[in-house]
Amino acid sequence: MRTLSLTTVLPLLLSLASAQSSDGRPPFQNTTSIPKHYALLLTPSVDPIDIFGPLGVLTGLHMYYTNSTGRVTLSLLAPSLSHSTTNPPLPGLDFGADLVPTVTFDEYLSAHPSTGAGGANASIPPIDVLLVPGGGGTRGNVSREIAFVETIYPSLQHIISVCTGSTILARAGVLDGRKATTNKKAWAWATGFGRGVEYVGKARWVRDGNVWTGSGVSAAIDTTYAFLADVYGEEVSQWVADASEYTRWTDASFDPFAERWNVSDVATPA
Amino acid sequence: MRTLSLTTVLPLLLSLASAQSSDGRPPFQNTTSIPKHYALLLTPSVDPIDIFGPLGVLTGLHMYYTNSTGRVTLSLLAPSLSHSTTNPPLPGLDFGADLVPTVTFDEYLSAHPSTGAGGANASIPPIDVLLVPGGGGTRGNVSREIAFVETIYPSLQHIISVCTGSTILARAGVLDGRKATTNKKAWAWATGFGRGVEYVGKARWVRDGNVWTGSGVSAAIDTTYAFLADVYGEEVSQWVADASEYTRWTDASFDPFAERWNVSDVATPA
Repeated sequence: MRTLSLTTVLPLLLSLASAQSSDGRPPFQNTTSIPKHYALLLTPSVDPIDIFGPLGVLTGLHMYYTNSTGRVTLSLLAPSLSHSTTNPPLPGLDFGADLVPTVTFDEYLSAHPSTGAGGANASIPPIDVLLVPGGGGTRGNVSREIAFVETIYPSLQHIISVCTGSTILARAGVLDGRKATTNKKAWAWATGFGRGVEYVGKARWVRDGNVWTGSGVSAAIDTTYAFLADVYGEEVSQWVADASEYTRWTDASFDPFAERWNVSDVATPA
Repeated sequence: MRTLSLTTVLPLLLSLASAQSSDGRPPFQNTTSIPKHYALLLTPSVDPIDIFGPLGVLTGLHMYYTNSTGRVTLSLLAPSLSHSTTNPPLPGLDFGADLVPTVTFDEYLSAHPSTGAGGANASIPPIDVLLVPGGGGTRGNVSREIAFVETIYPSLQHIISVCTGSTILARAGVLDGRKATTNKKAWAWATGFGRGVEYVGKARWVRDGNVWTGSGVSAAIDTTYAFLADVYGEEVSQWVADASEYTRWTDASFDPFAERWNVSDVATPA
C-alpha cells in the first residue's frame, strides 16, 4: 500500500493531539515502563522538604499529565496506620504537621508475598518507585523501616533516598558496593553505614543503576527532577519545573555544600 | 568599679555560648518581637510544595534554634478537623497525602473573640504569622477560608501567601491598594481579585508592609527565606539554607517565569 487509510492515520493523530496539549506540554519519551505506583516511606519525624519536595514534583507531573499514564497511585507507608509527624524529635519543640499513612509494611508484604513482584491483592498494586526520606528520626530505632526496604528492594523499578534516608538504604544493604551521597551536615554519621559504599562528597545526587541517593533536604527537589528527566524525558522534567516556577540545578556535581560543611569522599569497608 | 566580678561576666559568657553554638550558628538579630505561633491554613487540595516548602524552612529554623526563642508552636487550620489532602481536584487522580488539621477556624475565633488579639483561651495562643498556600482547590468554594482571613488579618504580625493562596488574601481585602504577586502560570485568573491591587509580573515575591505574596509553588521557599532574613536576620536565614542544602534566590525580582509564561503587570480597578 502506498497510501495510508484514515483508520491507520486517525489513531496517530489522536495520540499526537493528546500528547501535545494546547500549552505546549511535551510528550513522554518513555511509554513502555512508566511507573504506576509510587510510595513514600514515612520515616519517623520525617523532614517536611525531604518528603514534600519529591512529592510536589511528582504531583505536578501527574496533575499536568493526568490520563497520559493510565492510573497512577501514591501510597504512604509506615509500620502502622498511626499518624506520622514532621515534628523533629527534640524536647520542647511542637512544630510539626501530622500525616496519615495509607498502607502498613505488613499489609503490603501480605499482599505481595514474593516481595512485591506479584499481584496477590489487587487493592494494593506492586510498588514501582519507593522514596525514602530522612529526618531526625533516622537516628533512632528504624529497624522496621530497614527490614522493609531490604525485603522490597529487589522488586522495585527505582529507589530514591533523600538526606539521611540514605542510612536506611545502606543498613538494608541496598548501597553495598555502590556510589552514593547523603546529607552534608550529617556527613560524619551518615557515611558510616553499608559495605563497600563509595560516598561522594561533592554531589547533589548520585545515581547508581536503579538507586538514586539525594544529598541533604532541599537537594531532593533536583534529584526528583533528574529522575523525571531520566524516566519521562528531559523536556517533560523542564516543563514541570517551569510550571512549578523552579530553577533546577541539573548538574549532579553542583554542590557548594560539600565545601560549606567541609566533607570529603568516604569509602566504607567491604 | 573598674573590675568586673565573675557574677557580672558569667551570664554574659553563657549568653554568648548559647547564641553562638559550636557549629557557628549566628544569633537572632531581632529579639523583641519573634513570632511565637505560626499557622498554616490548609486550603482544599493544597499544593505539597506550597505548604511544605515554607514549613520545611520554618522547621529547620526552629529545629536548629530550639530553646532560643521560647516555646514556638505551629497550628494547621481548616474549616473542620477532617483530613485535608494534597491530591489535586482532578478526576481519576489518586496521588495525595492526607494531613491532619489541629484547630478549626471556629475554635480559633471562639478562643480569640477580638480577632486574635486577646488570649481568652490559653490553649490556643494568638497567631503571629499566617501562611496561606494555594493549589487547585482555590478555584473552588473557599468562602470559609476567605472569611477567616478577613477576620484574623488585623491581629497578625505577618501574613504570607504562596501561589494562588494570594486569591484568598485578595478576596479577603488584604491586598486592596497593595503591590502583590502570584502564580505565573495561573496569572490571568489569579490577578482578577482585589481592589486597586498592583500585581507585579516580574517578581519572585513581593513584600508590602506585613503582607508577603510569593509567586508560584517553588517560589515559596525563597519567599520564606526572605521573611526569615527580615525577621531573624540575613545571617540566620543563610545559615538555615546552608543546613538545608538550598541555594537561595535572594533577589525578589529574579523571575525567569514571568517571561516563560508571558505575564505582564496587572492593576485591578479600585
